[in-house]
Amino acid sequence: MSKYIVIEGLEGAGKSSAIDLVNRWFETHFADLERVNTREPGGTPLAEEIREIWKRPREEPMAPMTELLMVYACRAQLVESVIKPALAEGKLVIGDRHNLSSIAYQGAGRGLESEVAGLSAITLGEFKPDLTLYLDIDPKLGLERARGRGELDRIELESLDFFERARGAYLDHAKRDGTILTIDASQTMEKVHQDIESALAKVLL
Amino acid sequence: MSKYIVIEGLEGAGKSSAIDLVNRWFETHFADLERVNTREPGGTPLAEEIREIWKRPREEPMAPMTELLMVYACRAQLVESVIKPALAEGKLVIGDRHNLSSIAYQGAGRGLESEVAGLSAITLGEFKPDLTLYLDIDPKLGLERARGRGELDRIELESLDFFERARGAYLDHAKRDGTILTIDASQTMEKVHQDIESALAKVLL
Repeated sequence: MSKYIVIEGLEGAGKSSAIDLVNRWFETHFADLERVNTREPGGTPLAEEIREIWKRPREEPMAPMTELLMVYACRAQLVESVIKPALAEGKLVIGDRHNLSSIAYQGAGRGLESEVAGLSAITLGEFKPDLTLYLDIDPKLGLERARGRGELDRIELESLDFFERARGAYLDHAKRDGTILTIDASQTMEKVHQDIESALAKVLL
Repeated sequence: MSKYIVIEGLEGAGKSSAIDLVNRWFETHFADLERVNTREPGGTPLAEEIREIWKRPREEPMAPMTELLMVYACRAQLVESVIKPALAEGKLVIGDRHNLSSIAYQGAGRGLESEVAGLSAITLGEFKPDLTLYLDIDPKLGLERARGRGELDRIELESLDFFERARGAYLDHAKRDGTILTIDASQTMEKVHQDIESALAKVLL
């Protein structure tokens, strides 16, 4: 049962703890299934080097197209050298973000919808996750949580309006794409985890 | 007279000395014109950081699409933050490589023609140099010269066949695009420089 499952959501939505939970769920229900965890942008030594440049706040303003192309450079590297080989070997891949993040952040957030669509087509073709769990949260609440974690990176310094547009794109895609399941991440962590487990059970058991 | 002039050619074609010459020529004939020199990939602090990652030989094989997307990330940054602002201020921009290098190296060299065409359109739209001087050389001779300079980078380690395909694309585009002038770079340096000066005089005086 090789599958590619992705966790998506705004800053502070609780992706990390959701990813831990998904890993534990598969450990319980499919103990024999080898798991590969990825994160984007990054996930290979090369892509992590690009991520580091991408994340770091700097004096030189980063052109929106530069930001977008760097994300796709990382994604191309991760998909070709990690995700596709793992799926071909029958493994489960659990991803911290994938293409939907670009649709939300660079597409809706920065107003580069057609550029994102073009780059998706060139870089990924028809490749996409089997299942995406989108953790939905009001950006005001999410950013409060993220800020509680300490220093903010270049993306976390964006305006609330930027994150509102990103959220709109997430919700819009979740409505139109049956492989994207929305989880209400404003609930207590216990309830969020119950919802994730129910979603996994419904789709995979 | 704001203009964007680009020097193109394979490794060892003599780009550096041609760029020096072009600078001296403008100093002589248009002493008041402020010049900006760029190089690709690179040319801004951010783009130079990406270039460094891009050039370095590494154990992890770089996916061809990753290589291509990194080049365009650098190009987007350079065009938006350096080239377009300089041209808008009436300056002359002299470029060491631009989009034609991607058409030659990643497009023809790696067989990514349609991907390069798509990325050019998304990243650059209609933007292109006013004049390109293409220094044409047999890759066997060019690589011999480049190897004489010392350690080879990731691109210079490519096969002769790769560079033959790149040269074919350069020649093909020069034939079809009147803004690309071909200079025979297998001649003596004196003769190459005479040809470059004649080309500049013909187009610009």
